[in-house]
Amino acid sequence: MIRHCIRYRVIYGDTDRMGVVYHANYFRWFEMGRTETFRHLGLAYSEIEKKGILLPVSEAWCKYMNSARYDDLLIIESTLDTGIKVGMKFDYRIFREGEYGEGESACPPLVKAYTRHACITPEGKLVRPPRFLKELIAGYADNSER
Amino acid sequence: MIRHCIRYRVIYGDTDRMGVVYHANYFRWFEMGRTETFRHLGLAYSEIEKKGILLPVSEAWCKYMNSARYDDLLIIESTLDTGIKVGMKFDYRIFREGEYGEGESACPPLVKAYTRHACITPEGKLVRPPRFLKELIAGYADNSER
Amino acid sequence: MIRHCIRYRVIYGDTDRMGVVYHANYFRWFEMGRTETFRHLGLAYSEIEKKGILLPVSEAWCKYMNSARYDDLLIIESTLDTGIKVGMKFDYRIFREGEYGEGESACPPLVKAYTRHACITPEGKLVRPPRFLKELIAGYADNSER
Amino acid sequence: MIRHCIRYRVIYGDTDRMGVVYHANYFRWFEMGRTETFRHLGLAYSEIEKKGILLPVSEAWCKYMNSARYDDLLIIESTLDTGIKVGMKFDYRIFREGEYGEGESACPPLVKAYTRHACITPEGKLVRPPRFLKELIAGYADNSER
Repeated sequence: MIRHCIRYRVIYGDTDRMGVVYHANYFRWFEMGRTETFRHLGLAYSEIEKKGILLPVSEAWCKYMNSARYDDLLIIESTLDTGIKVGMKFDYRIFREGEYGEGESACPPLVKAYTRHACITPEGKLVRPPRFLKELIAGYADNSER
Repeated sequence: MIRHCIRYRVIYGDTDRMGVVYHANYFRWFEMGRTETFRHLGLAYSEIEKKGILLPVSEAWCKYMNSARYDDLLIIESTLDTGIKVGMKFDYRIFREGEYGEGESACPPLVKAYTRHACITPEGKLVRPPRFLKELIAGYADNSER
Repeated sequence: MIRHCIRYRVIYGDTDRMGVVYHANYFRWFEMGRTETFRHLGLAYSEIEKKGILLPVSEAWCKYMNSARYDDLLIIESTLDTGIKVGMKFDYRIFREGEYGEGESACPPLVKAYTRHACITPEGKLVRPPRFLKELIAGYADNSER
Repeated sequence: MIRHCIRYRVIYGDTDRMGVVYHANYFRWFEMGRTETFRHLGLAYSEIEKKGILLPVSEAWCKYMNSARYDDLLIIESTLDTGIKVGMKFDYRIFREGEYGEGESACPPLVKAYTRHACITPEGKLVRPPRFLKELIAGYADNSER
């Protein structure tokens, strides 16, 4: 399982007048999460682009269970779904710091979500994920205990 | 069927460096669309709030088929799903102007999407959609040919 | 004087938890305002770009006097400063609808602002505003009473 | 001098179709910068609010000299202007990592900016900066070598 967590502190500009984070803004954080997951794998998304592969979002979904609030320190967990054959898919969960974990103290996430990504060339042609991406993912999965 | 269309012109601030609209920004336009649908029904969302009912987004989904680009004039079509019993649901489709319609010249939408909304009090208590909302919707559906 | 007004309705996504419009979001509306001013002059900004001229923001300033709020219908007034020799400059004022005008009922604007714009080629070379832009502006100023 | 730096990695959602960061988005990072400066001083802005003081932006200015780009790691430097008597003022400079410093390798900032802040009560009444804020600032200035 390829999983990576980042932290983000909620600012005023993320919130709306209901006092909570505006729903559309979570999708920015999912981008942060998957970008840092690629970097963690050893290949920044900007490097993938330089190799001629773009991964635009083709589908996005988010379920909002609880609200993130101003000044909350959030944990954005991104998980690459390695079972996908066409394109790529990431799953996300967001927690307040201190509420993340596996044990008894663990809380349900504030939101859970996924994004699907097409694999295209700069000219917009749909392609299969290239070998370097597959090998990167397979190699990581082999070497990883969790 | 309760359906309403608005127009929106894409600005630089909506786009990203791929030259197309950043995926998260569509969700702002869905908000514009459903807000104007309520106003079209005769009850602005700000008035619903004054009556003590909030409708936060509880789930959001969007499928991106084609890209909106800078300076495109978009048609944002919002449809209230009147078959929902708990909370509310809106469906959306976005078209470039000139590509919207039912006939032969009609094009597939750039994106299709939905949002689900919880119905809560200002204190956060989950409630059923109140009578005034149900009557508004039922009355409109009765008087409407399309 | 080259002046143009557009309308914009404030959405949830524009506000922050103080209940008012987040200060950075006004700059998006200034972009809307100057874009529609160019279109009003007869040459969309997208057409200016096709002629090989980009006008990126080189300086931005805004003074916030009063707050725009959710669901406010705003009037965004853009004025092209025709006295500028190097680059371009726009001045902006934003009013609530019904508070805009010259007479006794006129209110002070919610915000006033300006943006300065460099005039560059797609390769990033700084140039003087080209003849077609100068003629467009001069021609409009000649034919305009206000 | 009260000065604090934070890091931020540019995402797709920050850029526009010119390939660079959209000018309005820098103002979000200035908010991040001053928020973390308050936290660094020992009093989070959320705590200042709990003590009944709000510091809304009353004026904002930014000069754009060079462009931040996708995936750039930025250094956002915030400096509290301790010479201000009415309200508060922060100055900002943004650099690419590796280009920040005082010596020969130092580069000019990508942008420089300031924000002014009114000091108000939750009811909107304009007040002078309260004693706890003045003492916080004075105490820090006394104990600080740089």
